[in-house]
Amino acid sequence: MNKEIIAEKFRQLQDRICKVLETSDGKANFIEDTWEREGGGGGRSRVIANGNIIEKGGVQFSAVHGELPEKIKTKLKLSNSNFFATGVSLIMHPENPHVPIVHMNVRYFELEDGSFWFGGGIDLTPIYIDADQAKDFHLKLKNVCDRHHPEYYSKFKNWADDYFYLPFREETRGIGGIFFDHLNGTDGLSKEQALNFTMDVGNLFAPLYSRIMKQYHKIPYTEKEKDWQLHRRGRYVEFNLVLDKGTKFGLDTNGRTESILVSMPPEVKWTYQYPIESGSKEELTLSLLKKGINWVK
Amino acid sequence: MNKEIIAEKFRQLQDRICKVLETSDGKANFIEDTWEREGGGGGRSRVIANGNIIEKGGVQFSAVHGELPEKIKTKLKLSNSNFFATGVSLIMHPENPHVPIVHMNVRYFELEDGSFWFGGGIDLTPIYIDADQAKDFHLKLKNVCDRHHPEYYSKFKNWADDYFYLPFREETRGIGGIFFDHLNGTDGLSKEQALNFTMDVGNLFAPLYSRIMKQYHKIPYTEKEKDWQLHRRGRYVEFNLVLDKGTKFGLDTNGRTESILVSMPPEVKWTYQYPIESGSKEELTLSLLKKGINWVK
Repeated sequence: MNKEIIAEKFRQLQDRICKVLETSDGKANFIEDTWEREGGGGGRSRVIANGNIIEKGGVQFSAVHGELPEKIKTKLKLSNSNFFATGVSLIMHPENPHVPIVHMNVRYFELEDGSFWFGGGIDLTPIYIDADQAKDFHLKLKNVCDRHHPEYYSKFKNWADDYFYLPFREETRGIGGIFFDHLNGTDGLSKEQALNFTMDVGNLFAPLYSRIMKQYHKIPYTEKEKDWQLHRRGRYVEFNLVLDKGTKFGLDTNGRTESILVSMPPEVKWTYQYPIESGSKEELTLSLLKKGINWVK
Repeated sequence: MNKEIIAEKFRQLQDRICKVLETSDGKANFIEDTWEREGGGGGRSRVIANGNIIEKGGVQFSAVHGELPEKIKTKLKLSNSNFFATGVSLIMHPENPHVPIVHMNVRYFELEDGSFWFGGGIDLTPIYIDADQAKDFHLKLKNVCDRHHPEYYSKFKNWADDYFYLPFREETRGIGGIFFDHLNGTDGLSKEQALNFTMDVGNLFAPLYSRIMKQYHKIPYTEKEKDWQLHRRGRYVEFNLVLDKGTKFGLDTNGRTESILVSMPPEVKWTYQYPIESGSKEELTLSLLKKGINWVK
């Protein structure tokens, strides 16, 4: 199973996801930009905006190769300099504050010496945390994980808690999900099994999120709820620009800026010391933005 | 001239600046929060919002001391671990897109071995670049610089061009200004002269910016111009969260997050590939977001 096959699987995954999202949204269609990378390879950016449900979102596919920049080689302690990387990455910002922001990513990385690894994850950022939604979301992730390895869910759930965390806010980004990296065909799983797991995570996204879209987008919302959403999106911006490794890697390696930063929300607000009423839904959500919560119980 | 005197001068500078800004705005007043730092020292956060002219802004004073975190010591290659740092830092986000965003900072840093340095700067980020405004702004900075050292303006203007630059956008943040650091009483200037220069930069801010406020805030603006402003503020967010060293230092050293991120604009927009009309004012401004422009000629 060579890298071209993996890239092709990811490309088809992008196609399937975009189709389901368009159908679920019912109004907006993706616009596509293909681009080439100077150092080798390229990608396909798909962006959706002003839909019935999705206010702004992007589903990116890329398959790039070439020489690693010195900076990255030093950081990763690599002596190899030729790399191949392919992945699908998406973020959706819904218009209605009752529909959570979502992020999904699957990726594959290979070096010239033949070493390789898979990575990926899905995480959900509700504006208002809903216990049923959180339980259902985590249960579906757990089911996929359990089919592949008995320890994956707990390991990758904790990894997501640690990764999607804003230390300077002392908040998780949302209710987490799963995050995994360096899946290299050891761990009791072959390379093919690692790919299968990664694809299962990628394939889980569309049915999982389209069901959430359907279930929550018709809930009416108040001005206050919209305002809270715009402020929570500010935390999303802070995470992506200050902490997210993928964003940093992209901006540092001269990636396509408009594709990388399509993750930015369409509209955001910041207020100094945003007032939180005691006993409010906003306070409840804040109290649940913590690591280590068992959502499936 | 010891560090307490310098801190007191900065504290009085914050007072003077806030008074002038309140008078110029004519509506909003600063709210004040004083805070203490666990490791030593504290600060005075002053925030203004929903004024006639200023939509959101902060003027921060702090004087902190203690042990430097290991991470910072390693980065700065310091063996000394006790530091003292004091400064005033401000950012103003006006409501009217014809009034530019402004940033000013003066700072003083001292180590236990007696070594010290001053730093600071002022830079302007117009939403629409106005040649007269840019020339006047840079001339006033040049006048202050020229009073102290014949090479300061050209040196510190280039430093600002290099510092306030978004490589992944290939744009300067605005029309720059001056930026200086490591002013340590060599350079032909004594410590007292370095302080005097730094204070002159700090004292220049209020008359300079209040004149700009007065002159530009009554210009009517269109919806399109407001929309362009919200998008340009997105670049400001990108700079501050991805690139600004002060923000990074603050977030990394467990600073007061709400004071650090009061620099975030009140309302921001991001659109994938924001459309720029050929021959438009927006295109003209973009063409001027370059390093090395001689604004004073």
